[in-house]
Amino acid sequence: MKGKLVASVEEAIRLCGLKDGMTVSFHHHLRDGDGVLPMVMNKISEMGFHDITVSASGIHGSHGCLVDLIKNGVVTGIDTDYISKVVGLSISHGSMDRPVIFRTHGNRPHAIAVGESPIDIAFIAASAADCQGNMNGVSGPSAFGSMGYAFADAAYAKKVVVITDNLVEYPLTPISIDERYADYVVAVDSIGDVNGIRSGITAVTQNPMSLEIAKKAVSVFENSGLFEEGFIYQTGGGSISLATTKFLQAAMDRKGIRGSAILGGTNGLLVDLLEKGYFRKIMDIQCLDLDAVESIKRNQEHQEISAACYADMLSKSCVAKHLTCVMLGATEIDLDFNVNVHTDSNGIIRGGSGGHTDIAHGAKLTIAMAPLLRQRRSAVLEHVTTKSTLGDSIDVFVTQRGIAVNPKRPDLRSRLVDAGLPVKEIGELYETARALAGKPDPLPFTDKVVGKVYGYDGQLSDVIRQVDESKAAV
Amino acid sequence: MKGKLVASVEEAIRLCGLKDGMTVSFHHHLRDGDGVLPMVMNKISEMGFHDITVSASGIHGSHGCLVDLIKNGVVTGIDTDYISKVVGLSISHGSMDRPVIFRTHGNRPHAIAVGESPIDIAFIAASAADCQGNMNGVSGPSAFGSMGYAFADAAYAKKVVVITDNLVEYPLTPISIDERYADYVVAVDSIGDVNGIRSGITAVTQNPMSLEIAKKAVSVFENSGLFEEGFIYQTGGGSISLATTKFLQAAMDRKGIRGSAILGGTNGLLVDLLEKGYFRKIMDIQCLDLDAVESIKRNQEHQEISAACYADMLSKSCVAKHLTCVMLGATEIDLDFNVNVHTDSNGIIRGGSGGHTDIAHGAKLTIAMAPLLRQRRSAVLEHVTTKSTLGDSIDVFVTQRGIAVNPKRPDLRSRLVDAGLPVKEIGELYETARALAGKPDPLPFTDKVVGKVYGYDGQLSDVIRQVDESKAAV
Repeated sequence: MKGKLVASVEEAIRLCGLKDGMTVSFHHHLRDGDGVLPMVMNKISEMGFHDITVSASGIHGSHGCLVDLIKNGVVTGIDTDYISKVVGLSISHGSMDRPVIFRTHGNRPHAIAVGESPIDIAFIAASAADCQGNMNGVSGPSAFGSMGYAFADAAYAKKVVVITDNLVEYPLTPISIDERYADYVVAVDSIGDVNGIRSGITAVTQNPMSLEIAKKAVSVFENSGLFEEGFIYQTGGGSISLATTKFLQAAMDRKGIRGSAILGGTNGLLVDLLEKGYFRKIMDIQCLDLDAVESIKRNQEHQEISAACYADMLSKSCVAKHLTCVMLGATEIDLDFNVNVHTDSNGIIRGGSGGHTDIAHGAKLTIAMAPLLRQRRSAVLEHVTTKSTLGDSIDVFVTQRGIAVNPKRPDLRSRLVDAGLPVKEIGELYETARALAGKPDPLPFTDKVVGKVYGYDGQLSDVIRQVDESKAAV
Repeated sequence: MKGKLVASVEEAIRLCGLKDGMTVSFHHHLRDGDGVLPMVMNKISEMGFHDITVSASGIHGSHGCLVDLIKNGVVTGIDTDYISKVVGLSISHGSMDRPVIFRTHGNRPHAIAVGESPIDIAFIAASAADCQGNMNGVSGPSAFGSMGYAFADAAYAKKVVVITDNLVEYPLTPISIDERYADYVVAVDSIGDVNGIRSGITAVTQNPMSLEIAKKAVSVFENSGLFEEGFIYQTGGGSISLATTKFLQAAMDRKGIRGSAILGGTNGLLVDLLEKGYFRKIMDIQCLDLDAVESIKRNQEHQEISAACYADMLSKSCVAKHLTCVMLGATEIDLDFNVNVHTDSNGIIRGGSGGHTDIAHGAKLTIAMAPLLRQRRSAVLEHVTTKSTLGDSIDVFVTQRGIAVNPKRPDLRSRLVDAGLPVKEIGELYETARALAGKPDPLPFTDKVVGKVYGYDGQLSDVIRQVDESKAAV
C-alpha cells in the first residue's frame, strides 16, 4: 500500500520542497465545506513559511483563515476566479500589497498551461484516491462530483499532492485524474463537509418579483429565434437564474422541443430535466448539490469535463463556445451593458467572474437579470463599479420593469418587440431606477489597486481599488 | 451540426496544411482491421505529397499499402512501436533510406510530449464522435474499446483530425478525448473491420508442449514469493502467454488469493477473470477482442488508460511500474537474457516491443517463455539478433526443457530450486538446443541500418540491419 503515501500534510509539504515565495494551488468543488485549503494553509503557516501565493479556482466561506494568513504575511498573493465576502472584505480594505489576480474559470487553466500562472505545488482534494494518486470526486463519503477545476493544476503544477479521506486499494476506478501527475498522497480524516457544497448557491426564489424576472428572461429566449430543438443551455447559480428552469421547462413543453445539453455547474433541478428527457446530456464542471453528485456518479449521460474543456476560449474549442443561451445574474450593469459580479454596492469584493465572463462570451444569447433596485440601490449605473463581463458579451438585460437589448443586437430587439415584450432602452431603466433611488454616493475608493480583473481572453478588463474603511458605509 | 465537420479526408488534409516532409500519426486499436491509415495515406499519395513520416503506435496487417508508398517515395520515415510482417519484410530488404524508429508503447507518448517525436497531423479513428471532435472508442458499430494509444497524439499533434463512421449529435458521452484537441472531424463510411482486432493475437494454444511451458511459468510465479493477495498481472498476446491464464486461475484457487488488477491489452479470457472475481480491476490500453470491447463499455471496473498512464517509465508513475508479474513471449533470448521480439529467425522485421520492454522493466517478476526450438532453430542464442528488451529486465526464462534464472536474482533462483522446479543455467539450455539444432548460420545482414530500437527509457538498445535479399533463406 505504500506507493506515494506520506504520513501527513506536513511531510508532503516538506518533500515537495516548499519555499517562501512559492505558489500553492487548490480547487473549490467542496465550496463552503472545503477542509483542504485551511488544513494545508494553516500547516504552511505553522511551519513558518511566508510570502506564499494561493492559486485557487475559488475562495469560499470555508477559507476565512486566509484573512489572518494575509495579516501575518504568510499569504502575499492570491490568483483566483472568485472570492467570497470574508476574504473579500479584508482585501478590499487593503490587507494585501500585491493586487489579487482575478481570472475566469475558462482562462485559469489556460493561464496555468501556458505558464502565465505557474503553480509550484497543487494540493488536490479527492473523495477517493489510491496510494499512487489515481483520484476521483465521485466515490466515498465526501464525494463532491466533477473534479473539473483540478485538471490543470494536476497537469501543470511542478508537484502534486493528493489529499483524500477515502484511501482505496490500488487501483482506483473510475479515474478522473490519473497517477502520472501525483507526487504524494496524504490520507486525512476529512477533506471537508459535503453539506457545504450547497451553501453559497441560493435556493430557487419564491419572491414574486424575482419569479417575474425569470419568467420574462425565458420569454426572451423563447422569442429570440434561438429556441429550437437541440439547444444548449446554462444558468448561473443565483436565485433568479435557478428560477428560470421551471419556466424553461414549460416553454419547452409548449413548443414541443428538447435540448441537447445543459452545461453545468449542475444541481438537482437540472438533473431532473436530464432525467425527464428535457435534455440529452449534462456536461459538468462542478456539482452544486448532492443530487448532482449522485447523478454524475451513476449516469453516463452526465459527463465530467475539465475547466479547459468547459470554457477555455483560447483553445481549439470548448463546450461554452457552443452554448445557445445562458441566464446570468448581475450585481450591477451599466449603460454599455458591462456587468459587475466582483464587487458589492459598497465597493467591497464579494464574488468574481467564475464562469460568468466565459459563458457570456460563448453563448449565442446571453441574458443578464437583476431586480432594478436592490436595497434601494439601482442595478443600472452609468458605469459599473467593476467591469467583470464586458458589455459586448451581454445581449439582453431583464428586470421586472422592462427588458433592455444591447444596441449591437437590433435583430434581437425587433423580435422581442414583435413578441410584445416590454423592451426599453437601458437608459430608460437607468432613469427609472435613479428616480426611485436617487444618485448613489461615490464609493470611498483610494488610489490603491487591490485587484486586477482579467477576462475570458486573459486581457485586463478592470482594476478594483481599496475601499477606505474609515469612510465606508456599514 | 457543422462544427468542425469537413466533407472529406482530402479536405481535412488540405485544411491542416500538409506539406512534404511532415509527420502524420495514427493509432492501431483496430489492428488488422484498421481502415483509417490506408484511407488517409492513399489519399496523401493521390494528392501528390512525398517525404512523409508515418508515426503509428503500431503497423499491422491492414497497413500493407505502406510497402508501395515507401517504394514511390510518399513515405520516407516510420516511427512506431511494432511492424508486422509485410511492411517489415520491405523494410528489412532495405526499401527505406532513413532507418525506422522503433519505440515502446510507454516511451512513445513521452517522446511525443517532449518533442522528440513531433507530429504535424494526427488522424484519429474514433468509433463515435460529434461535430466538435469529442470522441470515444466504445460506442457505435466499429467500437474497438480503449483509445489508449491516441491520447498523446491528440494532445500534442499540431493538428488533429477525427475520423469516424459514427457521427453522433453533439455532445457525445462518454468522452475519451475531448473537443479541445480536435481541429477537424470527418465522417466516413467505415473506419475499418472490428473483426480484424482479434487477428494477429493468437488463440490459446492446445499444443501440449506450449501448455507445459505455460504451466511451468505459473509455477515460477507461484513459488517466487510474490504470489500474494492483491498482485497485479499482465500477459503478452502470444499463444503461450495466453495459456498461462488457465493455470493462474487454478493456482489462485489453490492458494485462495485474489489479484488487484490485470493490466491490459485485454481479451475475453481476462475479462472472464474480472467477472468471476479473480481480479478487482482491469486497466486497459487496448482491447484485443470484442469481449474486451463489450466489457470496457459497460463495466466501471474496466478502466481505459492512456499509453502514458500505462507505461511511461519517465513519468512520475504509471501502472506498469506496479506490476507484480508479467508473462511474455520471446522470439529469441541470449546468454545475457536479452530478448528479441523485433526480428524473426531470418533477421526480417516482424514485430516490435509494443509494451514488452516497458512491462518487463516495470514488473517485479518478468517471465519470458519460449519453446527451446522453433522450426529447428534454438530460441537461446549466444547473442540475440535484436536486443528488444535488455537482459536486466528479464528475471526468468521458461522452456519445456528447463527454467533459467537471471544471475542477478539469486534469491529467486533459491526459491525455485527449493520448490523443486527444473532450474538450469541459461548456458545449459543453450548447449542443449545447440546439440539438437546445430549452430545457426550467420544471417546475411549488410552494413545498412534499417531500424533503430529504443527502450523504455528512450535510450538506443540496438540497430537492425538490412537483410541481403539475394542471400536470404526463403
